[in-house]
Amino acid sequence: MLIARVEGSVVATKKNDKMTGRRMVLVRPFVVSEPGAQSFKPASTTLVAYDALGAGTGELVLVVQGSSARLAAPDKDTPVDAVVIGIVDSVDCGKTKLYSSGG
Amino acid sequence: MLIARVEGSVVATKKNDKMTGRRMVLVRPFVVSEPGAQSFKPASTTLVAYDALGAGTGELVLVVQGSSARLAAPDKDTPVDAVVIGIVDSVDCGKTKLYSSGG
Amino acid sequence: MLIARVEGSVVATKKNDKMTGRRMVLVRPFVVSEPGAQSFKPASTTLVAYDALGAGTGELVLVVQGSSARLAAPDKDTPVDAVVIGIVDSVDCGKTKLYSSGG
Amino acid sequence: MLIARVEGSVVATKKNDKMTGRRMVLVRPFVVSEPGAQSFKPASTTLVAYDALGAGTGELVLVVQGSSARLAAPDKDTPVDAVVIGIVDSVDCGKTKLYSSGG
Amino acid sequence: MLIARVEGSVVATKKNDKMTGRRMVLVRPFVVSEPGAQSFKPASTTLVAYDALGAGTGELVLVVQGSSARLAAPDKDTPVDAVVIGIVDSVDCGKTKLYSSGG
Repeated sequence: MLIARVEGSVVATKKNDKMTGRRMVLVRPFVVSEPGAQSFKPASTTLVAYDALGAGTGELVLVVQGSSARLAAPDKDTPVDAVVIGIVDSVDCGKTKLYSSGG
Repeated sequence: MLIARVEGSVVATKKNDKMTGRRMVLVRPFVVSEPGAQSFKPASTTLVAYDALGAGTGELVLVVQGSSARLAAPDKDTPVDAVVIGIVDSVDCGKTKLYSSGG
Repeated sequence: MLIARVEGSVVATKKNDKMTGRRMVLVRPFVVSEPGAQSFKPASTTLVAYDALGAGTGELVLVVQGSSARLAAPDKDTPVDAVVIGIVDSVDCGKTKLYSSGG
Repeated sequence: MLIARVEGSVVATKKNDKMTGRRMVLVRPFVVSEPGAQSFKPASTTLVAYDALGAGTGELVLVVQGSSARLAAPDKDTPVDAVVIGIVDSVDCGKTKLYSSGG
Repeated sequence: MLIARVEGSVVATKKNDKMTGRRMVLVRPFVVSEPGAQSFKPASTTLVAYDALGAGTGELVLVVQGSSARLAAPDKDTPVDAVVIGIVDSVDCGKTKLYSSGG
């Protein structure tokens, strides 16, 4: 899974019939770029994920990709390849707290 | 999913039996390259997607990849790994409108 | 799907039982590297695909990857992840013909 | 599969219903960057994997990705795309022992 | 599929129940980096594959990835995403023999 930050949203009126009512968010992956680093680094890319959890802009989320994404969609026939499966509370790396949703 | 722009089309007369009648478009992924950037950046690569929505050249579309792509094809046995599932109306990033199909 | 050029072939006598009789070709992906570019650019990588269409060396083909590749193989239990599903006749980008199999 | 080192953990309270009770670890892939190299090199990226084996921080693990990851989860409907399937004891490269969990 | 060279092996005693008895090899992908090149180039990365064919260190093999890999494993429920499906005898590129297992 990816850790990613919600940065925006995407609207598509004309779409596949199975996509009705889906909320699509633009997310940016975050990684710990080097061993021992004390903070996350945003990737220089973005992708679009289906969100059923109501994640807000700026929040870190867990995104599952590939066929497994469909298992997190409302039904297994939804043609999606990236879905938000969790809103991240905290990330710890060794004894360092890299991220806490509380700030 | 990817946001991508339709840039061309591909014709193949000799093909797998299950591919009859499929329209194939050449698309280029678009990403927001850096946090806080105010515009999309085209990727330096292209891929081919099946299009059932009639997307026009220059339009931004949503593309699903992998096994999920088959669920957006006319039938689940079509051997495709990338399908257009939506024509993008708008993309918002924070309070900035990055793209609007209206121009 | 990828557009790729057939550049060679691979022979493996000792192989998985389900692979008997398969023709394997070495292919190189081609992309339009920049928006507005008037020609294809070969990638600096190659992969191996199963070919049931009899593509010749130097021809451009469409390659499907992942689980969808199995649907283009003689039977769905063939353990392949890349299969040639079409021989490309032409690629158009806007009003420019990037490639024509006629030369 | 990937060889990766466990570097941290991720907590998400608000999550997909099927994710209850899952332990998520932050892992960093390790590769032998050049032929003949005598040691592993950490990648400059991280991903999140589900861990059912109780891997400790600093240990090297085997991670399976994609749909196969679900087969290593407690049930096949868990929406995960990366799962720890083994705790690495040793890695040998030719006659060189690259890694031994004993130190 | 990938062409890759077997460079080592990985041992994991504590592992997923479905992995018992599996032989895991460390492999390095090989590509023809540029059109017209007369030789293979090793990639700067490695991955781990399940091997049922008894490939020896230094041999070139064909590796299938993703869900298709499971079809080449002893049973379809094995949680693996990369499996050796052939031992390469020869690779030809145009009229050049890039590789021959005979030397």
